[in-house]
Amino acid sequence: MDDCIFCRIAAGSVPSTKIYEDDTVFAFLDIAPVSDGHTLVVPKSHFEYIHDCPAELLGEVCSRIGRIAGAVQRGVGADGYNVLCNNGRAAGQLVGHLHFHIIPRRSGDGVFDKWLSFKYPPAKAERIAQLIRKAM
Amino acid sequence: MDDCIFCRIAAGSVPSTKIYEDDTVFAFLDIAPVSDGHTLVVPKSHFEYIHDCPAELLGEVCSRIGRIAGAVQRGVGADGYNVLCNNGRAAGQLVGHLHFHIIPRRSGDGVFDKWLSFKYPPAKAERIAQLIRKAM
Repeated sequence: MDDCIFCRIAAGSVPSTKIYEDDTVFAFLDIAPVSDGHTLVVPKSHFEYIHDCPAELLGEVCSRIGRIAGAVQRGVGADGYNVLCNNGRAAGQLVGHLHFHIIPRRSGDGVFDKWLSFKYPPAKAERIAQLIRKAM
Repeated sequence: MDDCIFCRIAAGSVPSTKIYEDDTVFAFLDIAPVSDGHTLVVPKSHFEYIHDCPAELLGEVCSRIGRIAGAVQRGVGADGYNVLCNNGRAAGQLVGHLHFHIIPRRSGDGVFDKWLSFKYPPAKAERIAQLIRKAM
């Protein structure tokens, strides 16, 4: 898509700091990183959300993530990393082309500290599960 | 693995609120959710990190995530969702068995608000990229 920045990066018409490329995916450093080595893994085909991407292609894209993430971790000497895929504006997706963030982490770095978990009241979990199973 | 809680959940010896199951993956509601419908997708085979998981199996596991995530979003009527895989204690991984969080999101819900991005100083991005490419 001509008006998609990630399609243009994958096509090479917009420059990027490339990490990896093959027929299926393109990986490059995020220009607005949250930590050194913050990498984006992008399918070359344009899909907006992970649930839009055909299962077989999604599998092919993700099959590359382990190798790329391991290289990111070793490359920057991180203690760990997050793989994150935001779907929808409400979830923080800023570019409407499916992409996976690989975010190198160091112990106590404070990235993603805001993780406020709660407990379901009785029967609520099962009620929600039924809604999701029905939507499957 | 007998001492792995997710292996025991996948084997059915520990109860869970199941969303989906097939030969490869098991999906259930997180008992400490950050939002209603927060789901975990877990490969039945035991691997600690995404970079430990053989590429082909990783692809098979992830090929299910689009369908499951779409169902979670529709099931709880969310505006979007994050797919998140934490690797290592430093990245917030609490159970040492590879798993993907699907976190339903609503506009302005404040989950994951702490996303502090920066800019690389000149030449730093290329220096980091070289380290990662070498580690590939």
